[in-house]
Amino acid sequence: MRNCIVLPLLLIALAAPQPARAQDLTQQLVKLERGALDRWSKGDTGGYMDLYTDDVSYFDPFTDKRVEGKAAMIERYKPFDGKFSIARYEILNPVVIASGEIATLSFNLVNYNPGPDGKEKVLNRWNCTEIYRRTKGQWMIAHSHWSFTTPEFKTPQSP
Amino acid sequence: MRNCIVLPLLLIALAAPQPARAQDLTQQLVKLERGALDRWSKGDTGGYMDLYTDDVSYFDPFTDKRVEGKAAMIERYKPFDGKFSIARYEILNPVVIASGEIATLSFNLVNYNPGPDGKEKVLNRWNCTEIYRRTKGQWMIAHSHWSFTTPEFKTPQSP
Repeated sequence: MRNCIVLPLLLIALAAPQPARAQDLTQQLVKLERGALDRWSKGDTGGYMDLYTDDVSYFDPFTDKRVEGKAAMIERYKPFDGKFSIARYEILNPVVIASGEIATLSFNLVNYNPGPDGKEKVLNRWNCTEIYRRTKGQWMIAHSHWSFTTPEFKTPQSP
Repeated sequence: MRNCIVLPLLLIALAAPQPARAQDLTQQLVKLERGALDRWSKGDTGGYMDLYTDDVSYFDPFTDKRVEGKAAMIERYKPFDGKFSIARYEILNPVVIASGEIATLSFNLVNYNPGPDGKEKVLNRWNCTEIYRRTKGQWMIAHSHWSFTTPEFKTPQSP
């Protein structure tokens, strides 16, 4: 009799966990992102460098073309190490799209620092898309795209 | 004897095509992107709308948060339909990262239009990351991130 109960339960367990797995993966990737951002907020760029694959590619508003490879990323960010800080950040609406060994995470990020009056002020707002790739069971960032959310341009731009 | 030759050849065929498949997939996704951009260049936003999944999410420099869903994208772009044109565009360095039913495509895009003197002039430069998802054999865009390449900001910004 025991097997008659176990099998249906097993089938339910196999059929049901899709949303739970997606939620778990979102939590897992957000945790990795928070780990890197916690260090970043203290001016330590190494958290992200540790997450990048050797062949990572990268866009931000200051790169004149896609940056290719971890070595180029380290060279790019080394000069900033220890030279900035962020008092608080918020990750908004993280969403994961995943299949096989790829999981993409997109979210908005808001950074805060104290203003001249000491009150908390928005430092900047970002759009972020991360492409994580799982290698030997470890999720690492293989492509990263950061851009400002509705920045003010010097001359008007249109879509 | 025939099988003794066929089997090793089959094993070689199964083991070898990884780079060829990656190249094929890059060509396939760039073709889809070109199809949408060819229509876009004539002021027809429908090419991209046809490529978006119902649950597409989207970032560009003019969205105050991630846009969610194809219906919201159609509402967003309908007002621009037929009101712009691009004389020529270039897709630079397309790179694909793929696994399972997900393939991400990133590239730089340069758009050109004639300047006041009639000579070709850069209209704008974009960083683009597309996340394609395959459903029923068809690759469609499930997430899209567009940002300007090194835009001039009204006030100085830093990474």
